[in-house]
Amino acid sequence: MVGPIAIAILFASLLPSSNIWAQTTPAPSSTEGFVNTLMPQPSQISIQEGRLVIAPSFKTATDHFRDVRLDAAIARSLGRIKNRSGIPIPTSPDTDGRSATLLVSVDGAGAAVQSIDEDESYSLEISPASAHLHAATVVGAMRGLGTLEQLVQSDATGLFIPVAVIHDTPRFRWRGLMIDCARHFIPVDVLKRTLDGMASVKLNLFHWHLSEDQGFRMESKTFPKLTELGSDGLFYTQEQAREIVAYARDRGIRVVPEFDMPGHTSAWFVGYPDLASAAGPFHIERKFGVFDPVMDPTRESTYKFLDAFIAEMVAIFPDPFFHIGGDENNGVEWKASPRIQSFMREHNLKDTSALQNYFNQRLLKILEKHGKHMIGWDEILTPDLPKDVMVQSWRGFDSLAAGARNGYAGILSAGYYLNLMSPADAHYMVDPLPETSDLSPEQQARILGGEACMWEEQTGAQTIDSRLWPRTAAIAERLWSPRNPNSVDDMYRRLGVESLRLEAFGLTHISQEYVSLRQLSGARQTGSFETLASVLEPVPFDQRAHLQHANQLTPLDRLVDALPPDPPSRHDFELLTRTYLKQPSAGTPEEKKLTSVFNAWISAEPEILRSIAGAPLLAESIPRAEQLTSLGTIGLEAVSFLSSGLRADAGWKAARLAVLDEAERPQALVRFTVIKPLRDLVIAVPETPAGQ
Amino acid sequence: MVGPIAIAILFASLLPSSNIWAQTTPAPSSTEGFVNTLMPQPSQISIQEGRLVIAPSFKTATDHFRDVRLDAAIARSLGRIKNRSGIPIPTSPDTDGRSATLLVSVDGAGAAVQSIDEDESYSLEISPASAHLHAATVVGAMRGLGTLEQLVQSDATGLFIPVAVIHDTPRFRWRGLMIDCARHFIPVDVLKRTLDGMASVKLNLFHWHLSEDQGFRMESKTFPKLTELGSDGLFYTQEQAREIVAYARDRGIRVVPEFDMPGHTSAWFVGYPDLASAAGPFHIERKFGVFDPVMDPTRESTYKFLDAFIAEMVAIFPDPFFHIGGDENNGVEWKASPRIQSFMREHNLKDTSALQNYFNQRLLKILEKHGKHMIGWDEILTPDLPKDVMVQSWRGFDSLAAGARNGYAGILSAGYYLNLMSPADAHYMVDPLPETSDLSPEQQARILGGEACMWEEQTGAQTIDSRLWPRTAAIAERLWSPRNPNSVDDMYRRLGVESLRLEAFGLTHISQEYVSLRQLSGARQTGSFETLASVLEPVPFDQRAHLQHANQLTPLDRLVDALPPDPPSRHDFELLTRTYLKQPSAGTPEEKKLTSVFNAWISAEPEILRSIAGAPLLAESIPRAEQLTSLGTIGLEAVSFLSSGLRADAGWKAARLAVLDEAERPQALVRFTVIKPLRDLVIAVPETPAGQ
Repeated sequence: MVGPIAIAILFASLLPSSNIWAQTTPAPSSTEGFVNTLMPQPSQISIQEGRLVIAPSFKTATDHFRDVRLDAAIARSLGRIKNRSGIPIPTSPDTDGRSATLLVSVDGAGAAVQSIDEDESYSLEISPASAHLHAATVVGAMRGLGTLEQLVQSDATGLFIPVAVIHDTPRFRWRGLMIDCARHFIPVDVLKRTLDGMASVKLNLFHWHLSEDQGFRMESKTFPKLTELGSDGLFYTQEQAREIVAYARDRGIRVVPEFDMPGHTSAWFVGYPDLASAAGPFHIERKFGVFDPVMDPTRESTYKFLDAFIAEMVAIFPDPFFHIGGDENNGVEWKASPRIQSFMREHNLKDTSALQNYFNQRLLKILEKHGKHMIGWDEILTPDLPKDVMVQSWRGFDSLAAGARNGYAGILSAGYYLNLMSPADAHYMVDPLPETSDLSPEQQARILGGEACMWEEQTGAQTIDSRLWPRTAAIAERLWSPRNPNSVDDMYRRLGVESLRLEAFGLTHISQEYVSLRQLSGARQTGSFETLASVLEPVPFDQRAHLQHANQLTPLDRLVDALPPDPPSRHDFELLTRTYLKQPSAGTPEEKKLTSVFNAWISAEPEILRSIAGAPLLAESIPRAEQLTSLGTIGLEAVSFLSSGLRADAGWKAARLAVLDEAERPQALVRFTVIKPLRDLVIAVPETPAGQ
Repeated sequence: MVGPIAIAILFASLLPSSNIWAQTTPAPSSTEGFVNTLMPQPSQISIQEGRLVIAPSFKTATDHFRDVRLDAAIARSLGRIKNRSGIPIPTSPDTDGRSATLLVSVDGAGAAVQSIDEDESYSLEISPASAHLHAATVVGAMRGLGTLEQLVQSDATGLFIPVAVIHDTPRFRWRGLMIDCARHFIPVDVLKRTLDGMASVKLNLFHWHLSEDQGFRMESKTFPKLTELGSDGLFYTQEQAREIVAYARDRGIRVVPEFDMPGHTSAWFVGYPDLASAAGPFHIERKFGVFDPVMDPTRESTYKFLDAFIAEMVAIFPDPFFHIGGDENNGVEWKASPRIQSFMREHNLKDTSALQNYFNQRLLKILEKHGKHMIGWDEILTPDLPKDVMVQSWRGFDSLAAGARNGYAGILSAGYYLNLMSPADAHYMVDPLPETSDLSPEQQARILGGEACMWEEQTGAQTIDSRLWPRTAAIAERLWSPRNPNSVDDMYRRLGVESLRLEAFGLTHISQEYVSLRQLSGARQTGSFETLASVLEPVPFDQRAHLQHANQLTPLDRLVDALPPDPPSRHDFELLTRTYLKQPSAGTPEEKKLTSVFNAWISAEPEILRSIAGAPLLAESIPRAEQLTSLGTIGLEAVSFLSSGLRADAGWKAARLAVLDEAERPQALVRFTVIKPLRDLVIAVPETPAGQ
């Protein structure tokens, strides 16, 4: 047993230790050097032989139509191509299409306020001499420009776009990302780079969750105490909100604000206790969960307040939809109030659900008066509501389908909760309209799309980028592309490329990990610690909540906060192991790679322990360093058995699986990304039957 | 010859390739585990046996005096200690000093507008039971809190502050950093993190260079066209400027604005051509250099304009000093204008220098009317100026000393130009008052300090952090600490620690390099390319200007922009080589380390060439990859001769030195950091005399 392992240790050390996840993904199909890295995949694409070479003479023109928004979108896309390549192509379009390399033909501006019906389709025809982008609207042209950017490739001969024909249109019209900016505040510049990321993957809606028990984040001039007393000074001015709306529109993204009511409203009541059902005083809630404070639906003053507040907000948010939340009202204060109970009896409202429905009906009238459609979470859905109310389902597909059967349009968010720390493929395989759906075509048409959701109990401004990206790109593809591109391996290959494209927008989802590792370890060089960190990820949301008992003021600066969910190691190691297990034998590239990975794990421990010694926030990780050695040793043993064809002694498997089980337990709020494939390796080892 | 090299290659590969610069600096002296990482060094420090342990019971109190600014400074410092350690110490001070672990005794608030006379001294007495910080002013307390933060150490037993007595007072009163925000615009959030970095190293003045031929960056409500037409939309609103002034004051930092005049003023004239000496139209200058446009000093309307403009600015910038630039007026337009020539004759002004003096005298009266002292660059200094005008010397110590002899106060900036891409030690050894100075004590007292200067021809928002940090910390130490801490080795050891502390403020001087390398190479894993990048740095400023012919619109996204000046490799490799050469022999740690470094260089080439192949912006670096192999080979050869005591053949040295000379030539706008020590190694090799 000892021989092969010792040799393996020697070879493994030839690899830089922190560099073990490069290029394990199989090479994709390509035509004349072109590699498809589009994300999302277009509905129709035909790549042909030949290239459109990008040279300084590359000129762009518009015909039919142009406006400031289109010009800016062209300048951004061409500017990025120019900066990436160093080739000084002009970035402003002109109107003389005759000598243009890229002709952008747009039929018209699109709606003054982008709606769910905006035509986002486009076509791209690329020949060796020129490219022609055609779209009905400016937003469609933006989608096509995004694809064009992603088509640009370079090799030793230079920069080029492959000869291709693309016809592309989104599968769903509502492709959103919700960000909870209330539990932790997210600054404007972070939101802007997030909008750039969204545009890059063709998302078209930013759902801005602006109020919570833990904070009210939007300036009101009519009710200034909302932020003066309810925000800790962390809020968006109206000017900033308008800036975000304009920035989003420039990228073809709608902004739907959410003010959650009647529950999740503690922060409103700090400044305006008369809105509440119970007596004050109220405070900004620091804990997380569902709390009792709830608006008083029985007083006319509540509706007068909301009418004035909404009047102010609709001047900032032009989108036809207005999100009223409506979730998780526990009814406690309504049941406890004799006055509210008596109101319910007078109005024949049999339970708190009926009372919330009464509240929603009143709120709906206010929204209608201000020209807005209502959208809310599952709970708002009651049979009395008119059919233009829309439902966002956090409960799941069944709840969404039930709504659709009853005539309500809806979008799916269950399955797209980024805060759960699930891997990208788990989200990717969730379909708002699964093939197995028994909805009628008419009912299916009511499923408008979906929204990724980022709840912020465990995330703040410093860590949000790695919680959003690149996983959100996988959800974006699910919502844009046809149902068929379901290869998880190919999705992850393209996700790796997209991740670097996202970094170019200033997103810190890659760099922040290394910044944090330096800060945690107090060392500039974090080599061995990176080796450990690369195979760890945050425990799931619920587990962290259970183990940490954090509140809003708990710093987000531990190892768990440094680590991205679903790091490259997870899928890369799984793929490597899977490929190896197809034909386990000595000398294959997969065997060499696995051996070197396991040796890197084993050799990392002493240096990790040295760096942890003086780093107070890393003390909790000591067991993880020791476990990494065990995992590496088990891996080497398994590969040595499998490659040699020798049998392990009876009991070998059980003992190794027990170690893996132990390593799988949460510790330091992080978990290993590699347990399942290791288990597959151990299980594949042939064992001498007991007693022989 | 072949034997030892081959073996060395084998061993070297045991090191992760990008990780070769860790821990080459010798361990410093310490008392009971305490390592002095203070930067700047205090004027008096006595470290004793014992520790004040930081536990959750750590309480802070103020006595005598407290105000909002002091409370905020305490909360920031304690918050950082808390977040670094995870120990939940309270961060707000109370006023009951009896049970306090840290007692902060401040005599008073200090001046309402911090002046050059602000008392910044403090004392710190730390016993095993408590710490006492005493200062005359809040600013002094901030300096002491900064030192306290830097004293905090951790080891396996936990967090502690060593028992110590510190009495500290700055050597110079004017310790500034000038940032040119005009040639390239620097956003507010970048300035804020820069101010945090400045406070960390006890700098006390931000000199804000706000106007240039290439842009006018400060909103004027009286003259809105200054930014409407002169800024490309990139400027600071008055609200933002006030925010910066307040942010700086909260950190004990003065803000002195500079509006450069009468030259460097093209951008003013785009909106207000009547200010100019020649006829318009004018444009924002895109090129860099000295240009002809200059204010018309003969018209009363010029002074009326400046009076109104300065009146507006003094309401924003409360500092008693106002910087008028005054540099690099070439006089061309004055000479070319018959009207101005006739004015000079009428007023008996014999040359353009005399006319500029006339302008300065007029400007001085306006400044005095608004209660400001004038400060300007060397050129303003003429015998007619009153003695309260201050000079900032870019010309050097002689110019500064000449001013001091004539009664003028001054500060040194020559030797502190960060944009030149010089190493930290070069700046560190420049003293505003060298020991060799022949100034009288009275004249010496007129040398108030110095300012690091960051001119922005070749730097922008994305790259400024690594151009400023950590080198600015070395200049800050020169200006604060006594003349005696002159050990370059120890400075670099502490600079490495300070660099990580600076990163905690959000500065991107470390992380941006890796972001850029990923973008340049299009790969997430940049291992071998990092090996090359780690021994490269930007060519000097003048060389780049000469080779690149860049203008304001040239993207700053090439390899030269990714690389920090004076990276850790430079001093670490020099120190390693120096230590090795003291007793070159086989088997020493230095020999092993050198060998592994050289092997890492050699083995990097194939992977670097692979990654460069598809990366258009890296094509220019191919020769550098090839040279790295040559450098590694020369290093291995030299070490093998030196360690074995064998002689090289005649001509060996000359051939190797020629290769080093070739590698020293600029290429891709970058240069190697390791040529000089390599040359030392080669020169040290004994050679068989020719003909033997």
